[in-house]
Parts: sequence; C-alpha cells; structure tokens
Amino acid sequence: MEKILDTVDAQLESGLERLFAFLRIPSISAQPAHKGDCLAAAEFIRAELQTMGFAARLSETTGLPGVIATNHEAGPDVPHVLFYGHYDVQPVDPRSLWHADPFDPQLVDGPRGKKIVARGAVDDKGQVISFLEACRAHLAVNGRLPVRLTMLLEGEEENGSPSLAELLNNERETLAAADFVYVADTNMWDAATPAITASLRGLAAMEVRIHGPSRDLHSGFFGGLALNPIQVLVDILGQLKDASGRIAIPGFYDGITEVSPAQEEAWGQLGFDTAGFLGGVGLSTPAGEAGQIPLAQIWARPTAEINGIYGGYQGDGSKTVIPAHATAKLTFRLVAGQDPAQIQEKFENFVTSRLPPDARAEFIRGAAAPGYGLNPQASFLRAAQAALTEEFGKPAALIGCGASIPVVEAFKTHLGLDTLLAGFGLDDDCVHSPNEKFDLACFHRGTRAHARLLAALGGNR
Amino acid sequence: MEKILDTVDAQLESGLERLFAFLRIPSISAQPAHKGDCLAAAEFIRAELQTMGFAARLSETTGLPGVIATNHEAGPDVPHVLFYGHYDVQPVDPRSLWHADPFDPQLVDGPRGKKIVARGAVDDKGQVISFLEACRAHLAVNGRLPVRLTMLLEGEEENGSPSLAELLNNERETLAAADFVYVADTNMWDAATPAITASLRGLAAMEVRIHGPSRDLHSGFFGGLALNPIQVLVDILGQLKDASGRIAIPGFYDGITEVSPAQEEAWGQLGFDTAGFLGGVGLSTPAGEAGQIPLAQIWARPTAEINGIYGGYQGDGSKTVIPAHATAKLTFRLVAGQDPAQIQEKFENFVTSRLPPDARAEFIRGAAAPGYGLNPQASFLRAAQAALTEEFGKPAALIGCGASIPVVEAFKTHLGLDTLLAGFGLDDDCVHSPNEKFDLACFHRGTRAHARLLAALGGNR
Repeated sequence: MEKILDTVDAQLESGLERLFAFLRIPSISAQPAHKGDCLAAAEFIRAELQTMGFAARLSETTGLPGVIATNHEAGPDVPHVLFYGHYDVQPVDPRSLWHADPFDPQLVDGPRGKKIVARGAVDDKGQVISFLEACRAHLAVNGRLPVRLTMLLEGEEENGSPSLAELLNNERETLAAADFVYVADTNMWDAATPAITASLRGLAAMEVRIHGPSRDLHSGFFGGLALNPIQVLVDILGQLKDASGRIAIPGFYDGITEVSPAQEEAWGQLGFDTAGFLGGVGLSTPAGEAGQIPLAQIWARPTAEINGIYGGYQGDGSKTVIPAHATAKLTFRLVAGQDPAQIQEKFENFVTSRLPPDARAEFIRGAAAPGYGLNPQASFLRAAQAALTEEFGKPAALIGCGASIPVVEAFKTHLGLDTLLAGFGLDDDCVHSPNEKFDLACFHRGTRAHARLLAALGGNR
Repeated sequence: MEKILDTVDAQLESGLERLFAFLRIPSISAQPAHKGDCLAAAEFIRAELQTMGFAARLSETTGLPGVIATNHEAGPDVPHVLFYGHYDVQPVDPRSLWHADPFDPQLVDGPRGKKIVARGAVDDKGQVISFLEACRAHLAVNGRLPVRLTMLLEGEEENGSPSLAELLNNERETLAAADFVYVADTNMWDAATPAITASLRGLAAMEVRIHGPSRDLHSGFFGGLALNPIQVLVDILGQLKDASGRIAIPGFYDGITEVSPAQEEAWGQLGFDTAGFLGGVGLSTPAGEAGQIPLAQIWARPTAEINGIYGGYQGDGSKTVIPAHATAKLTFRLVAGQDPAQIQEKFENFVTSRLPPDARAEFIRGAAAPGYGLNPQASFLRAAQAALTEEFGKPAALIGCGASIPVVEAFKTHLGLDTLLAGFGLDDDCVHSPNEKFDLACFHRGTRAHARLLAALGGNR
C-alpha cells in the first residue's frame, strides 16, 4: 500500500494536468449549444480510460451518451464495483461573478492552501479524475486493480438525468453484474473529517384540495351557517403534529428503525453547530420532534412539511368571501422502512376521516421515492470506513442526507444495487455557483483515500 | 286613514307615470359619461318634491349632489323623520341579457301579476317613488304630513358613497335634528310577509402574516429541524373554533346579548328554508355554532371567517420548500355589544400567545364597523311594525341581516341616528342584475304601507 500511496503523491502534478485538460471542455449538458463539447468530454474520458487499460466505449441514448468502461482483470474472487460519475457540468451564469474564465482552470491560493478553480472542479470532474488517479497508481504498481471495476460516466446529471433510466436498462447486463455502486459526488464532514453518506430520506408528495360550497359565497349572508373550506383545511392540517412534534397520521412511523443510542452518540461527536445552522437562516430553536437530536431530525426522522397553501382572496385589503375550495401541497420526507404509496394513502385517510359534513377532499399524489439506508454491517461499508479512517487519521463519519439523491434511487430501482457514497468535496466548494473550487488537498488526499478504499474493497489494507 | 289609502289606490296610475319618468333617466353614478343624467335625476326628484310642497334643494359635494327636502308643517309635537333614498342606479352590463331597454320601463306579466321592469325599478327609484306617493296621498287628504319629514336622496350609493360623509357633515344641522332615519331600500320576508330589518352585523377585518426563517428553505436539508410558518399558521387557525363551533378567542363573546327564546320562537315561525338556502350553494348541513338556529347563525351570532390564505408554492406539481412566511386574511362579523378594535386586539393576542419560538406575527388591521341592533322596544319600531302588520294582515317580521349596510353605519357614526329599515323588494327582484324588476303589487301595497307607517309614526293609526 505504501508504494501505491507514494505513486499517488508522485503523479499529483501529471494528474492535475489531466484534470485541467478535462476541465477545459465546457460540457454544459443543459445548453444545446454545448452538445459538441459534451461529446468531446465523453470522448476525452473514454480515451483516458482506454489508455489506462480499460475496455471503454460510448453507450448511446436518445440524449447524450454514457461512457462505459470495464477492467475485470482482478478476477472473480474480489468484489465487482460499479463506479458512477458524470462528465457534464452546470451552466456558468452569472458569468460576471466569476473571477476568471470558468473553463480556464487555475490553481489559486485559498484559506486551506491551493485550490482548483473552474466549473466542474469538484462536481464532478475533479472527483472523477481523483478516482481515476487512484486506479492509475494501483495499475502502475501492481499491473491490475484490487477489484473488478465497471465505470459508468453519465452526461446529463446536471440536466435532470433524462436518459439515465434508458442507459441503465440498455446496459443492464453489464451494470447489474456489479455488487454495489460507488459514487464520489458527495462531501466530507469538514476539511479534516472524511464522511460516508449512509442514508437518504425519500419523498412522498401530496396535494389536497378541500371543496365546500359550489361557489364562492358572501361571508355576510352565509357566514356562520355555511362551511368554510379554508377553516376545514387548517383544522385538519393543524392536527398533523402533536404537541411533541410527532406526526399524528396513524401508522406514519410503522416499519422504521429508531435512531440508536450508539448512532446518537456517534453523531453527537461530530459537533454539529445547530446554532450556526439555524442562525444562518434566522432561526434559533430546533422545531422538530422532541427528544431527537438535531442531526436525527434532518437525517433520520421522517417529516411532514406543508410546502404551499392557498385559497380564497389573496389580493390587497380584504374581501368578505367564503371560497368554494382551499388547497395545500405537502411533502413527506421518508426514511427506510416507509412505503411512499402507503404514506400517501395514510395521509388521505387522515384527511378524509376528519372531514365535516359537506366537505369533500380531492387528492393528487405526486413524486414518491422510498428512503434509503445502508446496512451499517455491510462489508463494503465497513471496509470503506476503515480505509478513510486510515487516510485521515480520524474516524470516517457515517452521515445521513435529509434529501434524496436521484441516481441512488435509480440504481436501486433499475438494478437493485446499493450505493456507497464517499466523496471529498467541502461545503464551501461553491457547487453550481460561480467560482466553483476543489481544494488541492481534497483532490490529493481524496486520491489517496480512493486508493486505500479500492484496496480495502478488494480485501487488502 | 281609509281616505288616504283610497287616495293611494286612486293615484296608482299617475304614480306609475311619475316613476316611469324617473326610470327613463339613466343615472348610472359609476360611469362618468352619465354624470349629466345623474344631475338630471337629482333635478327631477328635487322638482317633484318642490311641486309637492317641500322646500327642496341640491346640496353640492365634491361628487354628485344630494337632494335635501323638508316639510315640517306637522309641527313640533310629532316625530321628525329623516327619509333616506338614492336617485342613482347600477350599470346595466351585460346589456345583452336584458329583454328590453333598461331605461324604457315596461309593465310586464310576472308570476305574481304585473311587474315593473327597468334598471332602478326597485333599487331604489321604485321604493323612493312609492314613499313619495304615500306622502302625496297624505298631503292630498290632510294638506300636511303626519310627521315632520326631511328627505335626503344621495346620488352615489351605487358607487360606494364616496361623498356621503361630506354630505352628512355639510348638512349636519338639517339632518341631525331628526329623531331617526327611515330607509326603504330592503326587502320583505316574502311576497306575503312584510319585514323590518332590526339588526345588522358589523365587521372587523384582519390580516396576519407568520414569519419564520429569513428565506425560503430546502425541505430536504432543513425539514424536521426548521420552523415551517405555514404549519404555525394552520396550527393557530385550527384552534379558532372549538368542537361546538364556538369561537375560541378569549373574550370574543363579551358584551353580546344571547338570542332570546322569544326571538328564536319568532324567527322559527318565519319558516326559513335552511335546506333550500344551503342546497342552492351545494351544502346541506349548518356548519356554525351548535345550539343556535340557522337564522341566529347568520343574523345574530358573530363569526370568524378565514377569507383567504396563502404561503409557499402554489404552482403545478410540488416544490420542496419551507417558505419564509405564510398569510391569512380574516373577517369577523360582529353583533351589537362587540367593539371591532377590541376584537382585532383579542385576535392578535390569540395568535401571539400561541406562537412557537422563532415565529413572529405581523398584523394589518382592516375595516372595522360595529354591529347594529335596534332596541326592540323603540316606539318608532313598534309603530312601524303595527302599521305593516295592518296593511298585510300578517305580522311584520323583525329580521336581521348578516352583512353591514354602510349607510346605516354612516348615520350612526356621523349623526348619531338609529335607522328603521323597511322596504318592499323581494329576493327575486334581480337587484344589480339584468331585468331588474319591482312587482306592481309590491309598489302599490308598499305605498299603502308607507302611508300607514307615516300615520303610525305620527301617532295615528
């Protein structure tokens, strides 16, 4: 291993050159004018992989092609890893806020040493090249990789992945043979603490419209006798949570695993700055379930959020109307063990069982995706955690993410594969914003960590 | 009295001619192009009153003039009545739905005999002329009226009465000398049952905005930890009423008089068609306070109505947002004994005392007008009730109105005068709509009833 890490250190400069060449291609997938650049980026990375000894090809879709590369020389006794990344980048607008050309990558001084500044520096070209450089070091030292590796590089991730399902289905035979997916598109906990994102919350979206009178009514002539659907809506949504902040929909928490004391303890040690997190948006007090630590509230507990509400008069001044209907839009964040369709049904029952006479509820079910949680005992997870801990000299945090990551859902849905999320970005990387950057130290130590991780996944430390 | 009523009957045809001449003037106050017609209508009625022996003049305002006429020959020992009506009419749009020229009045067959069809037929030219014909009969028989009478005819009632306060203040000396106001701009209970409107509900309008985070938040990253102002708003407004439909704002009902069993009994005898009233707007079940009869719910009990609500995302589909604020607009209908400003303050306290940490409420106080109720023992009310009962051979109903009538408020506020509301319109008169009409029988019996009422107010039956 030391030899491999030395090789990583030695090839840092040439690796940066390869990354800069990749970054110079303005592969903005959302902008049709850049279609040629996207194809150039796909070909760049395909050729790079081919040079490294992969069997590499483009896989056509109705949109931009994926790049598929395989190197299975490690043989059948080691795990088969599917690495996912993307070769496209976000648009650069507003261009005027960039300090330099977004596609002329620069090494610039930053608060933690040098940083690579360019569109795609971290998301995701820097993370992809960092992983490739780790593979290169393994190949240079041993002539082969410690795992069977399949790589999938998508070209439309920054444009909503319209062809990803098609790509996964077209390449099912190649991709589904993997044991798990490895995605390097996430962040470290902080500059000193590596992290693996081990759980994601799912989503169930609902719209509910309460109908009352057949038309808008004058509140002078009808008020006090006629049903007001806004009142019905607030009466019901006002029962959504109990005094402790728990969601009061019967059966809502069925099937979920409570946050363990050990998990609370581990998250407690991360030193999450609750006051800073809330203070940044004008708040001071955790508003969720009583008895849950803040990180559990955003990572591990399901939620019910009213995202929008409307009904009746919304203009200036007042209008004495009892409206015919009132509407709310909600999303439930879900955790592993909850079925989105069942949650939607339970919400519908919650509402309909509380309707007074003459009120009718109309529902529209929206997006639905289950929550996701890796088994903390999964061997690839423990191996990865150990490798990161070794590189950084600090335990790798097993963190959660309160939102969904669509590609993780797609791998689970289309290929039945779990995903290991380990990346080396930082919160201040300006992802999707002007002056996107990747700390050189993150690129370098990320490469070393990837090298250790590949070895660990292959059964070596 | 019989001689006077015979005179009314005898002059029916000539009275109709006078009404038709008045109706032919398109005095639409909302349309500047009709300003000349409005002035012509003012002059028509001024001249008519002068011919009848009144001292009649125009009273200029910054808008259209009022007509002021006095006949005080009855002397100091009888009541001084201020009769209020208006000479302007609503616009006629949509013109295409009228079966004939709105300003070419016709006598047409209707389900209850002949009806007068024209814009202003009942609102308010027909009712004004009906009263004038009653005065004419008294003058013809006795040479004088049974009361001291001052008349005020406004020219902007259908345009929101922008100059009424100015007019009342300019003419305070003349008008405030009256004992009470008599307004003939309301309806009978039904074609056989005369009615006096003895109470009106007031109004207190409020807007409340709940502020939470300093900006809109991503519900994936913040949901479960950050305060959601829509949830706060529905939690609080969901407590607005208790399970029995009573408004839960502390002190809300302070100072009001409960509906007496005698009143309930009297209203019960009106045979209000609750099923038909609610069925006409798609409802079936009274939704107000338990234990109150439907007419009490709309006439005599205060309400809290949410007229509008909005916050967060309102477009198609869903958006995973926790918005920075959420807003509701409410109006409270008030009854006599409630102070609008105190109700607004109590609502503010109700909201602020229920705010969780980090939530802030911003209030905008809107329109405020107290409820209004005539003393049922007032002598003019009892006299009027007896006169109507005699004419129709059926007890005159003392009814309420769930909405405000601004002119009644104005007389109370500016002149300190109570108002007797007794008119002879019917619910199917198409007021403000195409093909407005006034049943000939209502015009004729209304004139007889006005004649009896003037006598009764003057102390004679």
